[in-house]
Amino acid sequence: MNSITLIGTGNMARAIGTLAVAGGYTVEVMGRDQAKVDDLVKALGGGTTTGKWGAVPNGDIVITALLYNGVVPVVAEYGDALAGKVVVDISNPFNATFDGLAHSEETSIAQEVAKVAPASANVVKVFNTIFRGVLEKGRPTAFIAGDDAQAKVDVATFVESLGLRPLDVGGLKMAHWLEGLGVVTVGLANNGVGHWDFALGVDEFTG
Amino acid sequence: MNSITLIGTGNMARAIGTLAVAGGYTVEVMGRDQAKVDDLVKALGGGTTTGKWGAVPNGDIVITALLYNGVVPVVAEYGDALAGKVVVDISNPFNATFDGLAHSEETSIAQEVAKVAPASANVVKVFNTIFRGVLEKGRPTAFIAGDDAQAKVDVATFVESLGLRPLDVGGLKMAHWLEGLGVVTVGLANNGVGHWDFALGVDEFTG
Repeated sequence: MNSITLIGTGNMARAIGTLAVAGGYTVEVMGRDQAKVDDLVKALGGGTTTGKWGAVPNGDIVITALLYNGVVPVVAEYGDALAGKVVVDISNPFNATFDGLAHSEETSIAQEVAKVAPASANVVKVFNTIFRGVLEKGRPTAFIAGDDAQAKVDVATFVESLGLRPLDVGGLKMAHWLEGLGVVTVGLANNGVGHWDFALGVDEFTG
Repeated sequence: MNSITLIGTGNMARAIGTLAVAGGYTVEVMGRDQAKVDDLVKALGGGTTTGKWGAVPNGDIVITALLYNGVVPVVAEYGDALAGKVVVDISNPFNATFDGLAHSEETSIAQEVAKVAPASANVVKVFNTIFRGVLEKGRPTAFIAGDDAQAKVDVATFVESLGLRPLDVGGLKMAHWLEGLGVVTVGLANNGVGHWDFALGVDEFTG
């Protein structure tokens, strides 16, 4: 469990990949656009490799670092190539006004991913409450939702090795409410907090 | 704006009332059960008064400290008595398994309150992400949603005088997602955090 595969070559893939390499993980990058894959592999360094789009990923943890509307189709396209993998959805399916979700049903991209992924894959939601800029400069809390306990431990271990604080919020059904935390985070940036250099976290009062 | 009325005599009314008296606010208590009202008025002290159920509240800010399924009916029952008031909904409409909301639609108790309250009343959602025990021992973040800017300032001023950190998340529509924060808070207590002496807050990374 010391290898990850990034499906996607955007800003979040770069931010997570940078932290993963620094944390001692072997990183593989897959993307439709080979030039972007090559750029990211070079930027990440540390033995980062290129994977073939649609092939079985080398990583035990596969992170779909894609825009939300691409996640479910890509997981469906990969199909059995994801058998046995921990599939991590990091997406935020914001509506057009960023004050709600694109799906009106009480679901989440992560739950929809679980419907199209192989039965032996375990889907986990994490990272969606963290702005990329925060990931690059801070060590925020990473809220985790998923149905498989071992997959959540694997993701928590990964997240912790990146310097973040993993916190389990419950089953995959909770991914809907983590997407809601994403909505609140944007609401805070646009209102009470007034900037984007923050993340939701937990304050303990155990004294 | 230095007076509040609590509708309700339960634990949250007691916790908020205690902080309000300490914060220099005049507190009025209204409840259906006069014995419980008398108990709470006595416990709060500091000039706390008793209001008549259904009458015009003395407080500029009226807090419905009731179980979620009582809030909308009680606001409807009060009707025009709430004209011009800031009506604060603090409720958590959890489902039976505490991993979702009791309403399947994308609404909130606060939004439903706004539908039955007088047009001149302004509804604000706050406090629902904070466990009572935390309110009694800590100074957590209080996430605020509402459509009226002045009403939110009034509530933020009140909350701040209680020692909490008020943070505006946006319009009343965001109350749905604050209720989601309530769901996540329970999920954290039952999973990653493992105890109830905490609250969701904001970690800033502005360095």
